[in-house]
Amino acid sequence: MTVLEPPAGAGFFAAHTVAELAAGLRGGELTPVELVEHALATADRLNPSLNAFVTVDEPGARAAARRAADELAAGEDRGPLHGIPVAVKDLVDTAGLRTTMGSRHFADHVPERDAECVRRLREAGAVVVGKTVTHEFAYGPTGDRSASGPGRNPYRPDAMSGGSSAGSAAAVAAGIVPLAVGTDTGGSVRIPAALCGITGLRPTYDTVPADGVFPLSPSLDSVGPLARTAADCRLMWRVLADGGADETSGELGGELGGEPRIGWVAPETFHPADDAVTGAARALVPGAEDVEVPYARELLSAYRDIQTSEAYSIHAERIATAPELFGEELLARLKTAEQVRGWHYVRAREVQRRATAAVVALFERHDVLAMPTVPITAPTIGARTWHLGETEVDVRAALLSLTSAWGVVGLPALSVPAGTVGGLPVGLQLVGPPRSEELLFRTAERLG
Amino acid sequence: MTVLEPPAGAGFFAAHTVAELAAGLRGGELTPVELVEHALATADRLNPSLNAFVTVDEPGARAAARRAADELAAGEDRGPLHGIPVAVKDLVDTAGLRTTMGSRHFADHVPERDAECVRRLREAGAVVVGKTVTHEFAYGPTGDRSASGPGRNPYRPDAMSGGSSAGSAAAVAAGIVPLAVGTDTGGSVRIPAALCGITGLRPTYDTVPADGVFPLSPSLDSVGPLARTAADCRLMWRVLADGGADETSGELGGELGGEPRIGWVAPETFHPADDAVTGAARALVPGAEDVEVPYARELLSAYRDIQTSEAYSIHAERIATAPELFGEELLARLKTAEQVRGWHYVRAREVQRRATAAVVALFERHDVLAMPTVPITAPTIGARTWHLGETEVDVRAALLSLTSAWGVVGLPALSVPAGTVGGLPVGLQLVGPPRSEELLFRTAERLG
Repeated sequence: MTVLEPPAGAGFFAAHTVAELAAGLRGGELTPVELVEHALATADRLNPSLNAFVTVDEPGARAAARRAADELAAGEDRGPLHGIPVAVKDLVDTAGLRTTMGSRHFADHVPERDAECVRRLREAGAVVVGKTVTHEFAYGPTGDRSASGPGRNPYRPDAMSGGSSAGSAAAVAAGIVPLAVGTDTGGSVRIPAALCGITGLRPTYDTVPADGVFPLSPSLDSVGPLARTAADCRLMWRVLADGGADETSGELGGELGGEPRIGWVAPETFHPADDAVTGAARALVPGAEDVEVPYARELLSAYRDIQTSEAYSIHAERIATAPELFGEELLARLKTAEQVRGWHYVRAREVQRRATAAVVALFERHDVLAMPTVPITAPTIGARTWHLGETEVDVRAALLSLTSAWGVVGLPALSVPAGTVGGLPVGLQLVGPPRSEELLFRTAERLG
Repeated sequence: MTVLEPPAGAGFFAAHTVAELAAGLRGGELTPVELVEHALATADRLNPSLNAFVTVDEPGARAAARRAADELAAGEDRGPLHGIPVAVKDLVDTAGLRTTMGSRHFADHVPERDAECVRRLREAGAVVVGKTVTHEFAYGPTGDRSASGPGRNPYRPDAMSGGSSAGSAAAVAAGIVPLAVGTDTGGSVRIPAALCGITGLRPTYDTVPADGVFPLSPSLDSVGPLARTAADCRLMWRVLADGGADETSGELGGELGGEPRIGWVAPETFHPADDAVTGAARALVPGAEDVEVPYARELLSAYRDIQTSEAYSIHAERIATAPELFGEELLARLKTAEQVRGWHYVRAREVQRRATAAVVALFERHDVLAMPTVPITAPTIGARTWHLGETEVDVRAALLSLTSAWGVVGLPALSVPAGTVGGLPVGLQLVGPPRSEELLFRTAERLG
């Protein structure tokens, strides 16, 4: 199991797993009220420098913690998340709690209902501490353009946290909360998880309901958990997926008597990579065999054509009526998105169909595919080009390059910490067949 | 049952139903060889004025007829189409027989294999007589622009046959063959059936395989039968659909103890209509109640956005490499199609999803919806605007206006003759819930 040394000054939850906390709650050494006070105090201390939270809901969190305490004291046990503080990306509706989408369009938006994923977390006894910074409308892997200000990396606050689930990753990495909800269209859970040195899962498409989650590109959007360890991430995933593994995953897991057969995907399949980043990820899977991914480059452009067309469709009326409320960068990107042709979208969907079949077939020979999550470490906030040795690369394209293809084919993908390069975290990405989340978690636990 | 008086000079098959022919073949009064000679002689006589056939395959047809004769004589009976001449739209692959798609790009194209629908017809003993004129690449409801020349209306040869299955409709209406294969994306079976005074079915989407049929817009394309009577059309449909009705249709039919409950859709829901055309269609369903169709106008634009985007995707490489082989009108239309935006395609697909659910819900109160198939009679060949009283209308938009929406929602739709207006045929269109083809045929038989 790979866990990174927490960043300097990290809070209480950087030192405890959820299983430890759950045991402490039941053994009487801890109470939900103490846990929420740890979270609130750490947020108070670190948020000014990290900008992880848009909103910290002190009264709501304290009330939920007291309820959880009462229930646990009364012997009503909602399972391993009962009394555990969680943070929720500010793209996900929370009843009565402002939800801005990182946009001035929603500056005063207070949803009436919880998103289904939030409802499941509350039902499981989790204590919602607050809302975390998202890149504006989740439209960006950098996490540094938002009506809420840029997300910052706990390992180096002038570096990006990655996005779009910027604050969720930073809040977990900094030990403010042990668990957070993110969303992932082309990498928005995995990229910030990797850049902040924690674990993040993009579940199989359509296995966690997106009701009440603001869409970016509905045919690609997924909701996923972020946590410090793979084991913690699994606990949260099971709640989000309402039970977690289906029978398929069970069977796949059952086959794992020996070592999982891991296939290594060279990052250059998709994009140039920093050798040190590749080396750190590769070191975690020493026995992996090289695998060629079919349709790799086609999947990258299919991602762009699908995501841009669907995103423009989501925002067309807002652009027509109140363009001035968009950030300048996003408005420019949306205007480019408007130009994408219908026939390119049609072609992208064809690539998606063909590639999904071809990629799923890779799992006949390998249980899991592995590669770096992101080919570079966290760039400086605001940077849009970056040097990779002699090569200048586009920051957004680089950040998304190793994650977006797996979103197009709808597969589950887990990013786990793989050490640091130059003091900044890097991630290893594990990708499995549909509904193989349990297999990914178990593989992660055997690594290193 | 509604059948139109055949056009002047019509051939042998205008006077006989397929059931009569099948009885004659089995009673010894007719042989497949005689039938094919009737077809070949009538084609010889009428094709110069009608341009229904691109290719008449005399040797192939005669050989198939002899085989059918031998089989029937030997007591091997392949069912009601055994020994019956059929024509196949020149968009549908026929092994060893030139298939041009109505395009100079495929002027010399000879497929190696039969399309699946042709294979099913041959397996049922049908005798393929030849290939019928299609509008260029099936991209047009007028039927008058094709590398093979314009299809002509048997009732008035300077009028359009309608398209894109121009020659299939004309060949049946003129009694050259009793049955023909067409394809229908937005009305390409139903429109020429209506304008030529015969019966044509667009089956439920994806119930007749499109393998070996050149695509126009794959998410809308369907393959359907054309015949003089609804009963003949049903016999051919059962072969094309490999058995025909599934259990759902059986049940729906079973409910039809009494009169079918028919809902009337005012054509103005979609497009202005000629009152005389509306009156002729309405007269066949005197007891019908008025029904409002939800999303009607949205479905028309959804049709355009889906069809154009998908069609451009089919032709992009040909346009890049050999634009001069396209007809001028089609090339201009494709260049317009190239401009359609991805987000419009995305919106169109959303309309399709929502509208399909809403339209299918109409069938809780009505078994079948009825309306004219086309709001005008056949315009003059080459006309692109047409007078509807004081109003000038676009010919293509008018021809497609009452059929394309049903293609978007994937429902089966049957056009049956509804008399003539000014000497030109008009059609009544019956639309049912998914897989209700048997119900549509039975409803057609009770009409008038």
